[in-house]
Amino acid sequence: MKKAKIIFQPSGRRGEVPRDITLIEASRLMGVDIESLCGEKKFCGKCKIRVEEGFFEKFGIESSGSHLSAWQEEEEKYINAQEKESGFRLGCVAKVEGDVLIFVPEESRAGKQVVSKKARDIHIDHNPAVKIYYVELTPPTFEEPMGDFERVCGELERDYGLTDLNIYIHCLRQLPVVLRDGDWKVTVSVWMDQEIVRVRPGKAEHAYGLAIDVGTTTVAGYFCDLTTMEVVDTVTLMNPQCKYGEDVMARITFHMTTEDGLERMSDDIIEGLNWLIDEAIKNTHPPKKKKKKGEEGPEEWIEVPEEGKTYLRLSREDIEDITLGGNTAMHHILLKLNPEYVGLAPFPPVIHRSLDIRARDLNININPSSYIFILPNEAGFVGADNVGVLIAEEPYKSDDIQLIIDIGTNGELVFGNKDKMISSSCATGPALEGAQLQFGMRAAPGAIERIKIDPETHEVDYKVIGRDAWRQFSEAKEIKCKGICGSGILDVLADLYRAGVVTKSGAFNKEQKSNRYRKNPGTNTAEFVIAWNEETSIGKDIVITQKDIRQIQLAKGALYAGCKLMMRRMGVDKLTRVKIAGAFGTHVDREKVLIMGLFPDCDTENIVSVGNAAGDGCRAALLNREKRVEANWVARNVEYIELTVERDFQQQFMEALQIPHMKDEFPHLEGLVSPEILQQK
Amino acid sequence: MKKAKIIFQPSGRRGEVPRDITLIEASRLMGVDIESLCGEKKFCGKCKIRVEEGFFEKFGIESSGSHLSAWQEEEEKYINAQEKESGFRLGCVAKVEGDVLIFVPEESRAGKQVVSKKARDIHIDHNPAVKIYYVELTPPTFEEPMGDFERVCGELERDYGLTDLNIYIHCLRQLPVVLRDGDWKVTVSVWMDQEIVRVRPGKAEHAYGLAIDVGTTTVAGYFCDLTTMEVVDTVTLMNPQCKYGEDVMARITFHMTTEDGLERMSDDIIEGLNWLIDEAIKNTHPPKKKKKKGEEGPEEWIEVPEEGKTYLRLSREDIEDITLGGNTAMHHILLKLNPEYVGLAPFPPVIHRSLDIRARDLNININPSSYIFILPNEAGFVGADNVGVLIAEEPYKSDDIQLIIDIGTNGELVFGNKDKMISSSCATGPALEGAQLQFGMRAAPGAIERIKIDPETHEVDYKVIGRDAWRQFSEAKEIKCKGICGSGILDVLADLYRAGVVTKSGAFNKEQKSNRYRKNPGTNTAEFVIAWNEETSIGKDIVITQKDIRQIQLAKGALYAGCKLMMRRMGVDKLTRVKIAGAFGTHVDREKVLIMGLFPDCDTENIVSVGNAAGDGCRAALLNREKRVEANWVARNVEYIELTVERDFQQQFMEALQIPHMKDEFPHLEGLVSPEILQQK
Repeated sequence: MKKAKIIFQPSGRRGEVPRDITLIEASRLMGVDIESLCGEKKFCGKCKIRVEEGFFEKFGIESSGSHLSAWQEEEEKYINAQEKESGFRLGCVAKVEGDVLIFVPEESRAGKQVVSKKARDIHIDHNPAVKIYYVELTPPTFEEPMGDFERVCGELERDYGLTDLNIYIHCLRQLPVVLRDGDWKVTVSVWMDQEIVRVRPGKAEHAYGLAIDVGTTTVAGYFCDLTTMEVVDTVTLMNPQCKYGEDVMARITFHMTTEDGLERMSDDIIEGLNWLIDEAIKNTHPPKKKKKKGEEGPEEWIEVPEEGKTYLRLSREDIEDITLGGNTAMHHILLKLNPEYVGLAPFPPVIHRSLDIRARDLNININPSSYIFILPNEAGFVGADNVGVLIAEEPYKSDDIQLIIDIGTNGELVFGNKDKMISSSCATGPALEGAQLQFGMRAAPGAIERIKIDPETHEVDYKVIGRDAWRQFSEAKEIKCKGICGSGILDVLADLYRAGVVTKSGAFNKEQKSNRYRKNPGTNTAEFVIAWNEETSIGKDIVITQKDIRQIQLAKGALYAGCKLMMRRMGVDKLTRVKIAGAFGTHVDREKVLIMGLFPDCDTENIVSVGNAAGDGCRAALLNREKRVEANWVARNVEYIELTVERDFQQQFMEALQIPHMKDEFPHLEGLVSPEILQQK
Repeated sequence: MKKAKIIFQPSGRRGEVPRDITLIEASRLMGVDIESLCGEKKFCGKCKIRVEEGFFEKFGIESSGSHLSAWQEEEEKYINAQEKESGFRLGCVAKVEGDVLIFVPEESRAGKQVVSKKARDIHIDHNPAVKIYYVELTPPTFEEPMGDFERVCGELERDYGLTDLNIYIHCLRQLPVVLRDGDWKVTVSVWMDQEIVRVRPGKAEHAYGLAIDVGTTTVAGYFCDLTTMEVVDTVTLMNPQCKYGEDVMARITFHMTTEDGLERMSDDIIEGLNWLIDEAIKNTHPPKKKKKKGEEGPEEWIEVPEEGKTYLRLSREDIEDITLGGNTAMHHILLKLNPEYVGLAPFPPVIHRSLDIRARDLNININPSSYIFILPNEAGFVGADNVGVLIAEEPYKSDDIQLIIDIGTNGELVFGNKDKMISSSCATGPALEGAQLQFGMRAAPGAIERIKIDPETHEVDYKVIGRDAWRQFSEAKEIKCKGICGSGILDVLADLYRAGVVTKSGAFNKEQKSNRYRKNPGTNTAEFVIAWNEETSIGKDIVITQKDIRQIQLAKGALYAGCKLMMRRMGVDKLTRVKIAGAFGTHVDREKVLIMGLFPDCDTENIVSVGNAAGDGCRAALLNREKRVEANWVARNVEYIELTVERDFQQQFMEALQIPHMKDEFPHLEGLVSPEILQQK
């Protein structure tokens, strides 16, 4: 196999790699992390790197752009002519064809996602669908020559009272060898007390599962130990379908206008889920490094465990259960169910109730006999994701009427209590998740997660993920921020408004004198600088543009109008309790979401943030099978309201774009915003 | 697409076919049937044809052997040097590469199997696992926007009381389109009152299923209408695994000695089953013929329905259920279950109980959401096929103790009544099924199915399938026999012995004077002529050789010894009732099987032939789901006896090779065989 030398700067990691692999693949072999939100699907443009030209004496290599595979048209979308000139390429496109020295710019360096979609500590009773049982069998004799399967079942009945078990053909095929390999002592995984899904030789103490929340933009997986309920890892991915369109209607349109659109989108998300699974598995092994004085061949890569760290060293087969939620469109597209009619009045889905689908039937690469539990759908676009929110938050057990807002590319709203619940959805777009904004990024180290703007000086203070001190207590060069993530975006509009930088209408106030406000000389559009060049690690100012603000307004307006209409339906004037769920973790500044007008007035004391509740619900269903029954019950017992057919939806939406609303509608804003600002036109 | 002209003689059918298809494929396009016992797997050698050389003015073609693809090594096994010289090729190997005129010799002309494994008229209660229901739905509205699946389920519950139905993802994917195509009127197929396996637009009256008996040598499929219980067609195939070994032990050995042996054997039988399914489907369409003045392209082939015949015109998807039986080795190999341990003491199978396996999971090409019901295994090699025999014959409901002999390559025996049943198996080899004998053939037109030999003159009379008159009432040239099938073979040994042509030991009596007895000049082995050259359509004498007789003796000896040992186990001296089941249809000459010593003495009045009872049992399970429960019950309630570990098995077997046994053991032979013959040493 032909090899090439490769050096990654600034980390200095280097070694030999097989030719014809991509730079991202090569970086992985070297232990260098390059950002790839889209899972190397060539559409997030985050893996830009630069190839250096010249002879590097220190390393004894001649590096050249011509040592990479030819420039591809798809790179033009992310790399402009000037960057191309300086040697920029996409790491997921360019392949190694000779020796190269690669510079990975700060903004392309991946940090492990640390906050976003992290699992919250919610109470879940331990009753997983997949449980493991250890049995010791007597080998067959002439007196008792009973078959392998019946022998195992007999013991499971004697020891654990399990009866009438089934087995899937794939698992049955492994049974005779495993029984004999284990010297008739085996660990059996049983699904729902009904079916043997795995048999392992000897005694095993753990089984693992994944709870996956398939969002329109972001996919989050919680990798859980089914025995201890511990969340071993959280893995995320940008939904690879994003390249077909930003929101659910765009995806449905893609299906309707493209011959094999549904198949392509489904295959992409399945491939994405398999990538996520591999990522979860990979993290249970130590990183690999090149041997100093090794032989040829792949064996030259040795594991370098971090000191004091233990590794589970799992394989795909160790994942024995998956629960999966998503809005109705994501649900349908993933399962290759025609999503056309769910997008057309009266919006009937193909199916409401939950499904147990064999992993193999969905081409999902885990233990092949295992099932994927697909949470049920409510109605319209309010799907299995919202059912996840419900079984995590359990409003149907509450006396208080509560509003739960799940912020994603498709916003979902539930309103009610134990007596009645209604739900609806609205197209918010991906802005509030940090996508589509010029400096939007996911919640990884270097992301600005909190923003404060001084109303007097217009000075900006902010906090970056991975660093405890705020900007004002740091040296500029220490900060190294890279972009703004979801929770930062929820802060920024309220403070820009409160500081008078933008007006009620969302336009930049042209009369302000902040030196952070400017016209971008390149694009000639207005922007406001959040972090100066010297504070960033990407070599440029991080700004919020007028276009960014419009995106945020559209999102918040849709939510606000939805809440308003649902309150009317329930005959409720005032919100008493609001829960905010979404991709941006567990911190939300409740005053700021009130100021920006994400929903109607509410006592800030009663606004709480619940993080990725949809994912929590999937995790609850993974670890407690009774939650699956509850999910089906609740999906049938929420009344769905189709907002877009409400008579005055458009008018409500247009009004809701402004920030904030009439003073008399927002008594709780008293004291949060200066009277002059609040009186603005 | 390049084409070539092809003419088949003697039928004279001709036309153009695409190049690069095999001669068998070309023959099918021309409506010419060439024999292929092995389903074109290149190992039965029955599809020998001859290519004619020269310019044929009448047809305007230049035919040449060089217009076929190159000679393959695998053809040598079936075509000797002289035949090769005269232009013989295997139809499943040679491909059309230019114009050819092909002669199909009589022995290679296929006749539709008419008798063998034909379905017997047994009583079955109608309660199929797959039932069809017609429903008319109201389309979704804003008031009732319920999802498609729930809409169908609601109506099925209202109209038919079906509750808690599941649906397989594949079927669910078709649901939205079918509902709308059918204008909300659909026919739903429901499996076991549990799961929707198919939805068709509009009202359908029929659903179809296949009951398949997978024998070691022969595979028989009964194509049934699940609604009317009618047997639409019977289709058979030689088990394509025969190329890996004749009997079950040889197959297991192949698995143990060949890296991917199990996969290959399993893939072959699955491919064979798919061929059988295609054959069943093909027979529901009219044959095709070339248009006289047609355009180019495949459209030039038009259907030529036989007058007065109606065609069901089914597709694979119309097969919605399959039941499948076979001995334990066939069962395991088909399902890719390790058959190693079932061949090793104490012979435990991987599983006893029945399985419901999704057709798709076995790569069987029928309605993809449908299940295959695999009958349960008893023990050792007595598998799902014997369970089929039992649920067809129901000895467990009888007061009389009965012996049921299932004759196949693996002989299976059941002995008992409602109080107790024991079973065992013995390796009979395929001789009694017509395989492995020099002129053995399957029960198709031209097969000798009955044989009588005059004890005085040694003249042979016989009857041929497809012709009512016996030999003695026919002109020699009218008869056109081709070989001997199973039921003929069961006749021949008894009559050869009774006529004094062979002795008790099975050797040809060298003192006889029959002009039919001779040494074959080519092979120098003894043989007896059953039909002279002029009576056959294959241009040569049909004979029984000394080797053929030895094969028959080995088979009958194994059965006899097995019966004897089972009687001892049950403490029974005399057989009171014998049922003979097997591949050779419903006719067995009970006197002759007694004379040849297939089993110990029994009153011939109480010997009955029950045909392919294993297949009947599969059919019973197809048409009546209660039989599936009964099958699992009976599989657990038959006691299995491993004959080969009985202390004197070998001695019993050696004694049983002789024909017949001591006079005092066979009082019922009195009058059937002359005293002198019976006293022979």
